[in-house]
Parts: sequence; C-alpha cells; structure tokens
Amino acid sequence: MLFAHENGRVIPKEDKIFAINGRAKAMIAEEGKENVINATIGALLDDNGDLTVLSSVMKALGTLEPVDFAEYAPIGGTPEFKAAVEKALFGSKRPEGEVRVCATPGGTGAIRSVIANYSEPGDKVLTHDWYWANYKNIAGELGRGFETFAFFNEEGTFNADDFEKVLAEVAGQQDSIVVIINTPAHNPTGYTLTDDDWRRAIGAMNDVAEKCRITLFIDVAYIDFAGDEEKARSFMPLLTGLSENVLTVFGYSASKTLTLYGMRCGALVCLAKDEEAAEEFRQVAEFSARATWSNCTRAAQVVMGKIYADPQLEAEVDAERETIRDMLLERGKAFEAALAEEGVQSVPFDAGFFASIASDDPDAVSAELEKEGIFTVPLAKGVRVSVASISKEKCVKAAKAIARVVKG
Amino acid sequence: MLFAHENGRVIPKEDKIFAINGRAKAMIAEEGKENVINATIGALLDDNGDLTVLSSVMKALGTLEPVDFAEYAPIGGTPEFKAAVEKALFGSKRPEGEVRVCATPGGTGAIRSVIANYSEPGDKVLTHDWYWANYKNIAGELGRGFETFAFFNEEGTFNADDFEKVLAEVAGQQDSIVVIINTPAHNPTGYTLTDDDWRRAIGAMNDVAEKCRITLFIDVAYIDFAGDEEKARSFMPLLTGLSENVLTVFGYSASKTLTLYGMRCGALVCLAKDEEAAEEFRQVAEFSARATWSNCTRAAQVVMGKIYADPQLEAEVDAERETIRDMLLERGKAFEAALAEEGVQSVPFDAGFFASIASDDPDAVSAELEKEGIFTVPLAKGVRVSVASISKEKCVKAAKAIARVVKG
Repeated sequence: MLFAHENGRVIPKEDKIFAINGRAKAMIAEEGKENVINATIGALLDDNGDLTVLSSVMKALGTLEPVDFAEYAPIGGTPEFKAAVEKALFGSKRPEGEVRVCATPGGTGAIRSVIANYSEPGDKVLTHDWYWANYKNIAGELGRGFETFAFFNEEGTFNADDFEKVLAEVAGQQDSIVVIINTPAHNPTGYTLTDDDWRRAIGAMNDVAEKCRITLFIDVAYIDFAGDEEKARSFMPLLTGLSENVLTVFGYSASKTLTLYGMRCGALVCLAKDEEAAEEFRQVAEFSARATWSNCTRAAQVVMGKIYADPQLEAEVDAERETIRDMLLERGKAFEAALAEEGVQSVPFDAGFFASIASDDPDAVSAELEKEGIFTVPLAKGVRVSVASISKEKCVKAAKAIARVVKG
Repeated sequence: MLFAHENGRVIPKEDKIFAINGRAKAMIAEEGKENVINATIGALLDDNGDLTVLSSVMKALGTLEPVDFAEYAPIGGTPEFKAAVEKALFGSKRPEGEVRVCATPGGTGAIRSVIANYSEPGDKVLTHDWYWANYKNIAGELGRGFETFAFFNEEGTFNADDFEKVLAEVAGQQDSIVVIINTPAHNPTGYTLTDDDWRRAIGAMNDVAEKCRITLFIDVAYIDFAGDEEKARSFMPLLTGLSENVLTVFGYSASKTLTLYGMRCGALVCLAKDEEAAEEFRQVAEFSARATWSNCTRAAQVVMGKIYADPQLEAEVDAERETIRDMLLERGKAFEAALAEEGVQSVPFDAGFFASIASDDPDAVSAELEKEGIFTVPLAKGVRVSVASISKEKCVKAAKAIARVVKG
C-alpha cells in the first residue's frame, strides 16, 4: 500500500551522495582506509581521514551553560548571533543597504527559505549548470522549476554572455525570478567570480530588472575557505550598483566557518535598498522559519556570538582556520597540476572544498573510479572530487586515475 | 519596494506568541518578575521562573566528544538515535507494524514533513478546533487548506460525532487526507483522548478509509509529561485495528522529553501495515529533509542515543522527569480548581504544559489580562495558559483574574 504524493518531485530511493559515501565506508571497513579514496564528503578531514575541528571553537563551546543548550532561540536567531553573522559575512566590505539576518538550519535552510518566499509555485529558479545537486531538490520540493545557464565559456571563465541570454529568456516568462550564484570557492568547481565577472553579471541583472524583479541569492557557504578574507569579499561593494528592482540575499553557513556542520547553523541575510524591502524580508523569513523548523540550534548561535564579540578569540579562530584553508588550497592545486600533467583540464579551481572534471557521462566515470576504490560524486556536467576530505597524496592519485578514465 | 510572494499564506508582521512574550519580558524588566505572570512560554520553568533542565541529561551531554558536535548526522538520523526514539516513543506498548524513524528539527519539522508528503497542494488538512496555532501556519506555508472538527462535546469529552461528520465531509472532497490529533496532554487544553475516544476515532477513520486514504498524524510532543508512562501509551495497541488504508505517523519531540528545546531534536515515526508503505515513508521523509533542512543536530541525537542505551542513565532521567511532571500536574489541577471555585469551567485538563479557557473573544480576554500583568495566548477558541511556565501560586492568581474577566 502506498500513501505518499510525489507532488511533481523526483524522489530517488536514496540520496545519491550519501549512498556513494555509504559504499565508500563499507569498502574502508573491508580493505582499510589506505586503500580507499573517499572524495565524496563535504567536510574537512585531515590527512588521516579524521574530521578537522577548530579547537578554538570547541574551547568556546566548552564555556556554555546548560541553558545555552536547553532554551529555545528566538525564531530569527539571538541578537548576538545576528550581529556576529553580519560582522563575519561582510568583514570590512559591507555594502550600503539595509541588512537583516534570519537564522536557518545550515545553508540548505537558507536556500529553501529564499525560494519559498521570493518565487511562486511553477516559477523557474535560475542557476549555473555546474551546481550543487541539492538546489534542484530544494526547488522541486517547493514545486518550482529549474533552469541553468552555462557557467563557463570556452576560456574557462565566467560565461556572462550565457547568463545574460538565459536570464533574459526566463525573465521574459515570469514576473519575478530567483537567481542563485554560488561564489566564492564555488561548489562543485572551486571557481570564484572575479570582480569583472560580477560587473558583467550585475549589468545583465539591471538590464532585465525593470520588467522582472530579481532576488539574487549569493550562496557564500565557502567564503571563509576561499583564500584571503578581504579578497574573497572584494565583490561586495559592487552590489551597491544593482538596480532597486534587485534584492540581494546571502546564504551564510556558520556551520562551515566554525567546522560545526552537525550543529546546523546558517543564516539568510538580506541586503536591501530600503527599509520596506528589509522589513518584508524579516517578516517572510521568520514566518517560513516558524512554519517549517520553528527556531534553530541555540548553542551554535551562542558560540558564534561569543567568538565575534571577543577580538582575541576571533583572531585565534581565524588563525586556526587559515592553516586548514592553506592545506585545502595546496590539495586543490596539487589535484589540478596532476591532471594537467596527464593532459586533462580540470574545471577552473580557485579555492574551496571541491574540484570538478567535466564529462559527458559522469555516472559512468564515477562508477569506473569506484572499481579502483576512488569514490566521487557524479553531477549533471561532470564528476566532483572533495579535496576537503582527502590528503594531497590522494588528490594526486585520484587525479591520475581520473585522467586515465576520462581519456578512456 | 516589495519583493516577496504571499503564495496564499497569511503572514503577520510578527509571530503572535513571541510578540506577547516580548511584552511580558519588557514588563518584567520594569516591574519585577513577582508582579508579572508570563503564562505564554511553552517550556518548563521552576517556581522562580528559571528554565528547568534535567541535570541527568546535561551530565550525558557533558560526556560528548568534539566530533559529536561537529560531524554531520545522516539525513534520517544516527542509528542509535532511531533506536532510542522507537524505544522512548512506544515503551512497552509498541503496536504491530513496520516502524521507520526520520529525524526532524523538533515537532514542527515533523508536522511539516507529513503534510508535504501525504497531501497535495490545495488539500485540506483536518484537525481539532482547539489546536496549536502553528498547525495552520505550517499548512499555509505548504499551500494546504485547513479544516477543523469540534474537539469537545457538551459533556467536555472527545466529540467523536463531530469528528466522524467532518472527516466524512472532507474525505468526500479529496483522494487522501492528513488528520492531525494532538494527544496525550493535548496542546492547548491538556486533554488526553481515552481509549474509548480512540475506539470511536478509529471506527470513524476506518469507515471512510476505503474511499479516501488517511494519514493519521498523532502529535505526541507532550507524551512524557502526560502522567504515568504506561497509561499515556495505552491507546497505542488499539492502532492495530486501523484499516490498511490508514497510515499512522507519530510526531515525537525528543527536545521536550529531554528538556533540550534549543537543540531542535524531533522525529517523524511511521507505523505502517506493510514494508512497502514503510519504505516509501523513509524515502519521502528523507527526501523532504534533504531538500528542506538537510540533516539535524547531531549532538542531541548522540545524547538521546546514550540515554536510551544505558538503563541506569535512562532510569535517572525518568525519575528526574517524574518530579517535574508531578509539579506540572499539581499546577494544572490548582488552576482548574481555582477556576471552578469562581464558577468557571476550564476546558478539561488531564496533564501537560497547557490549560485553556473557552471564550468568544479570546483577543479581548487576553488583552484585558495583560493590563493586570497576566500574559496568555489567545487562540481561535479561547485563551491558553502555560502552567509549565508559572508557579502553582501564580496559577491560582491567574485563574481568579481570568474568571473575573470572563464573567465580565
């Protein structure tokens, strides 16, 4: 007997990434972790395959009182959390505009909320053709359609022309549109939009915004692993040049910044041109929160608040994070170089947790690699390798195997 | 400039309960807590107004490793959490059937998931006319309609006749229906359906189920504060008598059972007649989770797993909870008695966090009480008093003031 309604969604028997990860774990149990490369995990692991946790963050967590764990947080988040997110997100690059913060369970919750509130059922959400597969699930769960533009041109840089073209097409079909751009340190490729890329993207949005209001959702989940903090935020002041018909909303992942993935601590942050749009944001984001997950994990909010209210602690956390960020970058660059040595181009990698290789048949490539004990994630346009979860040595080994499989 | 879409929802400027609570806090800051009765909070406070936290639970939380906080939990929850929820939910009264557990952010997430997966946009969700106001928000957020039946008859017991009537009406208009029943220790009245009430309700559902599949959602958020554990679960074996066209799904709140509200730890638990329905449940619940909040707070799941895998610790937690449960019962009964003394009937209270008084103009009653420093929550059918959050002495004082206002 079956009871559920698909409601237009495509529901797989199992989540693909988690299923592959399950098979990787089974093989590790059987053949030992030195013989398996599990490049599926979106969390930072050290070279031994153990989770990297910032000890300075854990120290802060250790100072919490029982009530910090037990008490409900306000729907939108504690005031200290909101202030911390604003500080952490913008750094020294806060653009002009009205800012409001609403706590969400991780980045996923933030994406869910922006789509639920700024599009209508049946609308298409627009993003790049290299995308985190869950974007499509989230849109589908909400009865929204999905459209993509080509993220890269033939030079391997941001394809502003295709963005312009597809945006104009979709904008011609609906009254409003949610545009999702994942940068810096894009998941799944590691690409970071340059300031010039941003100027082109902003121009394209301003061109259509008079006829079709735009909500620009910038997914900055990996911003604190994207190299120098200032440089990673250099695009922010450019957003001031957006038309008043564009509302900017950021998805920020405190879980990632603090390596507290399991505490589900993210935020949706609006940067509005006026108070009316900002207050509307607060109302709808809080309503959706209340009617979907209610409030978010208080303990993580308290930790976030403590860190960003204490310059010494903040500096300690930043310094510790810098070490892992450098490790990440070294792994990614080694992966890219090893591929190049074999005559295969990876999709451009600047920084972050992931690198990718283009393929016409990602499922076949991923399956072939699995036979050799290399677990990757097949996406629409290629195969994703989490450099965050494997050592530099394994990055090189994986790159060589991938080159062999891709070249056939 | 406005950007958001209402999408059929009614979005207030602020959440009503949280707004009243805010005014109560402001008055406490000004006039002192001894002069204010804040009966709005859905959390257990001691007689001094401080949050009651089970020290045995905090002790278990104190044994966690950094990785227990930092690592992602599986989408559906850790295996230890799932086993713990099954044990905690059913106790010695586990009915026959296939059980599956999916972690959710609190009870809210569980309700969201069952409505998203077992009804279609435009369908009406059916519940009692005394209901937690957020049910309506959740249905609205998902584009679902909302219908109620009269929860009480003139004798002040379960109105099986009206349930039968309204269920048949709504079932006649749709292919499937989600029915929400909140018991034991119903929020907002404290009523617990008797086994006889359940027999009538089951009969009513079986009568219509052949033509209209039913998903029965039993919200047991307050089951561990509903008096004797065995007695509170006595209805469970009766569910075996449900037609195979009825799927039973429980919403369980580990956050409440462990007094860890702020850690957002709930579960959706299906009790299916066959494996097909149970596996379908697992797939759709996990898909919705992945596409809405991804995974849930791991630390709370680890604590739950530890407690229910350690008989001595479990007994310690149960004993500590029994003390607060008795305190709750004493407060509720004192409230009821004080009302009766003034010649006013409360809605029948058996146990739990809340008691209620019927009114034709709940907003006016609540506003009038506010003038006297008594903060309550106006609902569709009356005014809710959280006996969980005020002392026995304040319960009596509140009852007398309410009687005065209600009698006019």
